[in-house]
Amino acid sequence: MSRLPFSAEAVERAHRIAALEPPAEVDPRVEALVTQLIGRVADKWTMLILEELTEAGELRFTRLSARVPGISQKMLTQTLRQMERDGLVLRTVHAVVPPCVDYRLTDLGSSLSAAFCGVWIWADQHLDRVEAARQAFDARSGR
Amino acid sequence: MSRLPFSAEAVERAHRIAALEPPAEVDPRVEALVTQLIGRVADKWTMLILEELTEAGELRFTRLSARVPGISQKMLTQTLRQMERDGLVLRTVHAVVPPCVDYRLTDLGSSLSAAFCGVWIWADQHLDRVEAARQAFDARSGR
Repeated sequence: MSRLPFSAEAVERAHRIAALEPPAEVDPRVEALVTQLIGRVADKWTMLILEELTEAGELRFTRLSARVPGISQKMLTQTLRQMERDGLVLRTVHAVVPPCVDYRLTDLGSSLSAAFCGVWIWADQHLDRVEAARQAFDARSGR
Repeated sequence: MSRLPFSAEAVERAHRIAALEPPAEVDPRVEALVTQLIGRVADKWTMLILEELTEAGELRFTRLSARVPGISQKMLTQTLRQMERDGLVLRTVHAVVPPCVDYRLTDLGSSLSAAFCGVWIWADQHLDRVEAARQAFDARSGR
Protein backbone atom coordinates (compact mmCIF):
# COMPACT_ATOMS: atom_id res chain seq x y z
CA MET A 1 0.00 0.00 0.00
CA SER A 2 1.47 3.28 -1.05
CA ARG A 3 -0.12 6.37 0.42
CA LEU A 4 2.35 8.82 -1.03
CA PRO A 5 3.21 9.77 -3.76
CA PHE A 6 -0.01 11.20 -5.11
CA SER A 7 -1.13 10.76 -8.68
CA ALA A 8 -0.16 13.53 -11.09
CA GLU A 9 -3.86 14.44 -11.29
CA ALA A 10 -4.25 14.78 -7.53
CA VAL A 11 -1.22 17.06 -7.36
CA GLU A 12 -2.45 19.14 -10.28
CA ARG A 13 -5.87 19.49 -8.68
CA ALA A 14 -4.26 20.57 -5.38
CA HIS A 15 -2.29 23.21 -7.26
CA ARG A 16 -5.47 24.49 -8.89
CA ILE A 17 -7.30 24.71 -5.55
CA ALA A 18 -4.41 26.46 -3.84
CA ALA A 19 -4.15 28.94 -6.72
CA LEU A 20 -7.72 30.14 -6.05
CA GLU A 21 -7.92 33.35 -4.08
CA PRO A 22 -10.15 33.32 -1.00
CA PRO A 23 -13.15 35.70 -1.16
CA ALA A 24 -12.50 39.29 -0.12
CA GLU A 25 -15.54 39.64 2.17
CA VAL A 26 -17.39 37.02 4.11
CA ASP A 27 -20.93 36.86 5.40
CA PRO A 28 -20.78 35.84 9.14
CA ARG A 29 -23.51 33.26 8.47
CA VAL A 30 -21.43 31.67 5.72
CA GLU A 31 -18.44 31.77 8.07
CA ALA A 32 -20.35 29.86 10.76
CA LEU A 33 -21.40 27.25 8.20
CA VAL A 34 -17.83 26.91 6.92
CA THR A 35 -16.62 26.38 10.50
CA GLN A 36 -19.27 23.73 11.02
CA LEU A 37 -18.35 21.99 7.77
CA ILE A 38 -14.65 22.05 8.68
CA GLY A 39 -15.63 20.41 11.97
CA ARG A 40 -17.23 17.59 10.00
CA VAL A 41 -14.52 16.95 7.44
CA ALA A 42 -11.39 17.74 9.50
CA ASP A 43 -11.46 14.30 10.99
CA LYS A 44 -8.69 11.77 10.65
CA TRP A 45 -10.99 8.95 9.56
CA THR A 46 -12.59 11.08 6.85
CA MET A 47 -9.13 12.07 5.67
CA LEU A 48 -7.76 8.50 5.65
CA ILE A 49 -10.83 7.18 3.81
CA LEU A 50 -10.57 9.98 1.22
CA GLU A 51 -6.95 9.02 0.69
CA GLU A 52 -7.65 5.30 0.22
CA LEU A 53 -10.52 5.92 -2.21
CA THR A 54 -8.44 8.46 -4.13
CA GLU A 55 -5.77 5.83 -4.57
CA ALA A 56 -7.94 2.78 -5.24
CA GLY A 57 -10.81 4.34 -7.20
CA GLU A 58 -13.48 2.01 -5.84
CA LEU A 59 -13.39 -0.28 -2.82
CA ARG A 60 -15.60 -2.84 -1.20
CA PHE A 61 -16.40 -2.21 2.49
CA THR A 62 -14.20 -5.08 3.68
CA ARG A 63 -11.23 -3.98 1.52
CA LEU A 64 -11.59 -0.41 2.75
CA SER A 65 -11.71 -1.67 6.32
CA ALA A 66 -8.42 -3.55 5.80
CA ARG A 67 -6.72 -0.50 4.29
CA VAL A 68 -7.53 2.02 7.02
CA PRO A 69 -5.37 0.98 9.97
CA GLY A 70 -7.05 1.00 13.36
CA ILE A 71 -10.61 1.83 12.26
CA SER A 72 -13.44 -0.16 13.85
CA GLN A 73 -16.33 -1.51 11.74
CA LYS A 74 -18.67 0.80 13.60
CA MET A 75 -16.54 3.91 12.99
CA LEU A 76 -16.05 3.01 9.32
CA THR A 77 -19.81 2.54 8.82
CA GLN A 78 -20.56 5.80 10.61
CA THR A 79 -17.90 7.84 8.78
CA LEU A 80 -18.93 6.46 5.37
CA ARG A 81 -22.56 7.29 6.09
CA GLN A 82 -21.66 10.89 7.01
CA MET A 83 -19.49 11.15 3.89
CA GLU A 84 -22.35 9.81 1.77
CA ARG A 85 -24.73 12.33 3.36
CA ASP A 86 -22.25 15.17 2.66
CA GLY A 87 -22.11 14.09 -0.99
CA LEU A 88 -18.43 13.00 -0.81
CA VAL A 89 -18.92 9.29 -1.36
CA LEU A 90 -21.10 7.22 -3.67
CA ARG A 91 -22.38 3.92 -2.29
CA THR A 92 -23.35 1.15 -4.69
CA VAL A 93 -25.16 -1.96 -3.45
CA HIS A 94 -24.79 -4.98 -5.72
CA ALA A 95 -27.74 -7.38 -5.63
CA VAL A 96 -25.66 -10.55 -5.48
CA VAL A 97 -25.38 -13.35 -2.94
CA PRO A 98 -23.75 -12.53 -0.57
CA PRO A 99 -24.60 -8.84 -1.13
CA CYS A 100 -21.70 -6.46 -1.51
CA VAL A 101 -21.31 -2.73 -1.24
CA ASP A 102 -18.78 -0.60 -3.10
CA TYR A 103 -17.69 2.91 -2.27
CA ARG A 104 -16.11 5.52 -4.49
CA LEU A 105 -15.56 9.27 -4.35
CA THR A 106 -17.88 11.72 -6.05
CA ASP A 107 -16.36 14.75 -7.81
CA LEU A 108 -17.00 16.68 -4.60
CA GLY A 109 -15.11 14.04 -2.58
CA SER A 110 -12.20 14.11 -5.03
CA SER A 111 -11.97 17.89 -4.72
CA LEU A 112 -11.85 17.64 -0.91
CA SER A 113 -9.17 14.98 -1.18
CA ALA A 114 -7.14 17.32 -3.39
CA ALA A 115 -7.57 20.14 -0.87
CA PHE A 116 -6.14 17.85 1.85
CA CYS A 117 -3.16 16.99 -0.36
CA GLY A 118 -1.23 19.99 1.03
CA VAL A 119 -1.62 18.61 4.57
CA TRP A 120 -0.19 15.21 3.53
CA ILE A 121 2.76 16.92 1.89
CA TRP A 122 3.25 19.05 5.02
CA ALA A 123 3.21 15.93 7.26
CA ASP A 124 5.70 14.16 5.02
CA GLN A 125 8.06 17.11 4.99
CA HIS A 126 7.89 18.11 8.65
CA LEU A 127 7.88 14.72 10.32
CA ASP A 128 11.44 15.09 11.63
CA ARG A 129 10.74 18.50 13.15
CA VAL A 130 7.61 17.20 14.89
CA GLU A 131 9.51 14.17 16.23
CA ALA A 132 12.31 16.42 17.52
CA ALA A 133 9.78 18.79 19.16
CA ARG A 134 8.11 15.83 20.91
CA GLN A 135 11.40 14.51 22.25
CA ALA A 136 12.38 17.96 23.52
CA PHE A 137 8.95 18.43 25.15
CA ASP A 138 9.05 15.01 26.83
CA ALA A 139 12.59 15.67 28.11
CA ARG A 140 11.45 19.00 29.62
CA SER A 141 8.37 17.35 31.16
CA GLY A 142 10.55 14.57 32.61
CA ARG A 143 8.61 11.83 30.77
CA MET B 1 -14.43 37.88 14.19
CA SER B 2 -13.45 37.21 10.62
CA ARG B 3 -12.23 33.71 9.86
CA LEU B 4 -11.93 34.22 6.11
CA PRO B 5 -10.34 35.96 4.22
CA PHE B 6 -6.80 34.87 4.98
CA SER B 7 -3.92 37.31 5.10
CA ALA B 8 -1.97 37.75 1.88
CA GLU B 9 0.95 35.98 3.59
CA ALA B 10 -1.13 32.92 4.53
CA VAL B 11 -2.37 32.60 0.96
CA GLU B 12 1.11 33.02 -0.45
CA ARG B 13 2.43 30.36 1.92
CA ALA B 14 -0.37 27.96 0.90
CA HIS B 15 0.56 28.51 -2.73
CA ARG B 16 4.21 27.73 -1.97
CA ILE B 17 3.32 24.52 -0.11
CA ALA B 18 0.94 23.35 -2.85
CA ALA B 19 3.61 24.06 -5.48
CA LEU B 20 5.96 21.54 -3.84
CA GLU B 21 6.02 18.18 -5.53
CA PRO B 22 5.51 15.15 -3.31
CA PRO B 23 8.47 12.74 -3.10
CA ALA B 24 8.72 10.14 -5.84
CA GLU B 25 9.37 7.17 -3.54
CA VAL B 26 8.36 6.62 0.03
CA ASP B 27 9.76 4.45 2.78
CA PRO B 28 6.83 2.44 4.31
CA ARG B 29 8.08 3.40 7.79
CA VAL B 30 7.90 7.08 6.87
CA GLU B 31 4.45 6.44 5.41
CA ALA B 32 3.23 4.93 8.69
CA LEU B 33 4.59 7.91 10.62
CA VAL B 34 2.95 10.36 8.21
CA THR B 35 -0.38 8.56 8.69
CA GLN B 36 0.04 8.74 12.45
CA LEU B 37 0.90 12.45 12.30
CA ILE B 38 -2.12 13.13 10.06
CA GLY B 39 -4.24 11.36 12.68
CA ARG B 40 -2.96 13.83 15.28
CA VAL B 41 -3.31 17.06 13.35
CA ALA B 42 -6.42 16.27 11.25
CA ASP B 43 -8.63 17.21 14.13
CA LYS B 44 -11.20 19.96 14.05
CA TRP B 45 -10.02 21.55 17.31
CA THR B 46 -6.41 21.66 16.15
CA MET B 47 -7.56 23.20 12.89
CA LEU B 48 -9.81 25.80 14.56
CA ILE B 49 -7.07 26.77 17.05
CA LEU B 50 -4.50 27.09 14.24
CA GLU B 51 -6.93 29.38 12.42
CA GLU B 52 -7.56 31.64 15.45
CA LEU B 53 -3.86 31.95 16.26
CA THR B 54 -3.03 32.62 12.60
CA GLU B 55 -5.51 35.46 12.64
CA ALA B 56 -4.78 36.94 16.07
CA GLY B 57 -1.02 36.35 16.35
CA GLU B 58 -1.01 35.75 20.10
CA LEU B 59 -3.90 34.97 22.42
CA ARG B 60 -4.44 34.47 26.12
CA PHE B 61 -6.05 31.16 27.11
CA THR B 62 -9.37 32.81 28.04
CA ARG B 63 -9.52 34.82 24.78
CA LEU B 64 -8.74 31.71 22.74
CA SER B 65 -11.46 29.83 24.61
CA ALA B 66 -14.00 32.53 23.69
CA ARG B 67 -13.00 32.46 20.01
CA VAL B 68 -13.29 28.71 19.42
CA PRO B 69 -17.03 28.00 19.48
CA GLY B 70 -18.10 24.95 21.44
CA ILE B 71 -14.72 23.91 22.85
CA SER B 72 -14.63 22.88 26.52
CA GLN B 73 -11.86 24.12 28.84
CA LYS B 74 -10.63 20.56 29.18
CA MET B 75 -10.48 19.95 25.41
CA LEU B 76 -8.77 23.32 24.82
CA THR B 77 -6.14 22.55 27.48
CA GLN B 78 -5.56 19.07 26.06
CA THR B 79 -5.37 20.18 22.42
CA LEU B 80 -3.00 23.06 23.23
CA ARG B 81 -0.75 20.71 25.17
CA GLN B 82 -0.59 18.28 22.24
CA MET B 83 0.09 21.15 19.87
CA GLU B 84 2.86 22.41 22.16
CA ARG B 85 4.36 18.91 22.28
CA ASP B 86 4.23 18.68 18.46
CA GLY B 87 6.09 21.99 18.22
CA LEU B 88 3.13 23.85 16.67
CA VAL B 89 2.42 26.25 19.52
CA LEU B 90 4.58 28.31 21.86
CA ARG B 91 3.29 28.79 25.40
CA THR B 92 4.44 31.80 27.42
CA VAL B 93 3.66 32.06 31.12
CA HIS B 94 3.75 35.62 32.48
CA ALA B 95 4.72 35.90 36.14
CA VAL B 96 2.06 38.43 37.08
CA VAL B 97 -0.84 38.38 39.55
CA PRO B 98 -3.15 36.79 38.47
CA PRO B 99 -0.81 34.68 36.29
CA CYS B 100 -1.58 34.61 32.59
CA VAL B 101 -0.57 32.35 29.73
CA ASP B 102 -0.25 33.36 26.09
CA TYR B 103 -0.19 31.10 23.07
CA ARG B 104 1.17 31.74 19.62
CA LEU B 105 2.13 29.65 16.61
CA THR B 106 5.69 28.58 15.94
CA ASP B 107 6.96 28.64 12.33
CA LEU B 108 6.03 24.95 12.16
CA GLY B 109 2.48 25.76 13.33
CA SER B 110 2.17 28.56 10.77
CA SER B 111 3.23 26.22 7.99
CA LEU B 112 0.59 23.65 9.03
CA SER B 113 -2.02 26.42 9.14
CA ALA B 114 -1.05 27.39 5.58
CA ALA B 115 -1.33 23.75 4.47
CA PHE B 116 -4.89 23.68 5.85
CA CYS B 117 -5.75 26.89 3.98
CA GLY B 118 -6.81 24.85 0.92
CA VAL B 119 -9.36 22.97 3.04
CA TRP B 120 -10.91 26.24 4.30
CA ILE B 121 -11.15 27.53 0.75
CA TRP B 122 -12.72 24.22 -0.32
CA ALA B 123 -15.31 24.42 2.49
CA ASP B 124 -16.15 28.00 1.60
CA GLN B 125 -16.60 27.18 -2.07
CA HIS B 126 -18.49 23.91 -1.75
CA LEU B 127 -20.84 24.70 1.11
CA ASP B 128 -23.91 24.89 -1.14
CA ARG B 129 -23.19 21.54 -2.76
CA VAL B 130 -22.72 19.86 0.64
CA GLU B 131 -25.97 21.40 1.93
CA ALA B 132 -27.83 20.20 -1.19
CA ALA B 133 -26.35 16.69 -0.83
CA ARG B 134 -27.47 16.54 2.80
CA GLN B 135 -31.01 17.60 1.96
CA ALA B 136 -31.23 15.02 -0.84
CA PHE B 137 -29.83 12.29 1.45
CA ASP B 138 -32.25 13.14 4.26
CA ALA B 139 -35.19 13.16 1.82
CA ARG B 140 -34.18 9.69 0.54
CA SER B 141 -33.77 8.40 4.11
CA GLY B 142 -37.18 9.82 5.07
CA ARG B 143 -35.70 11.98 7.84
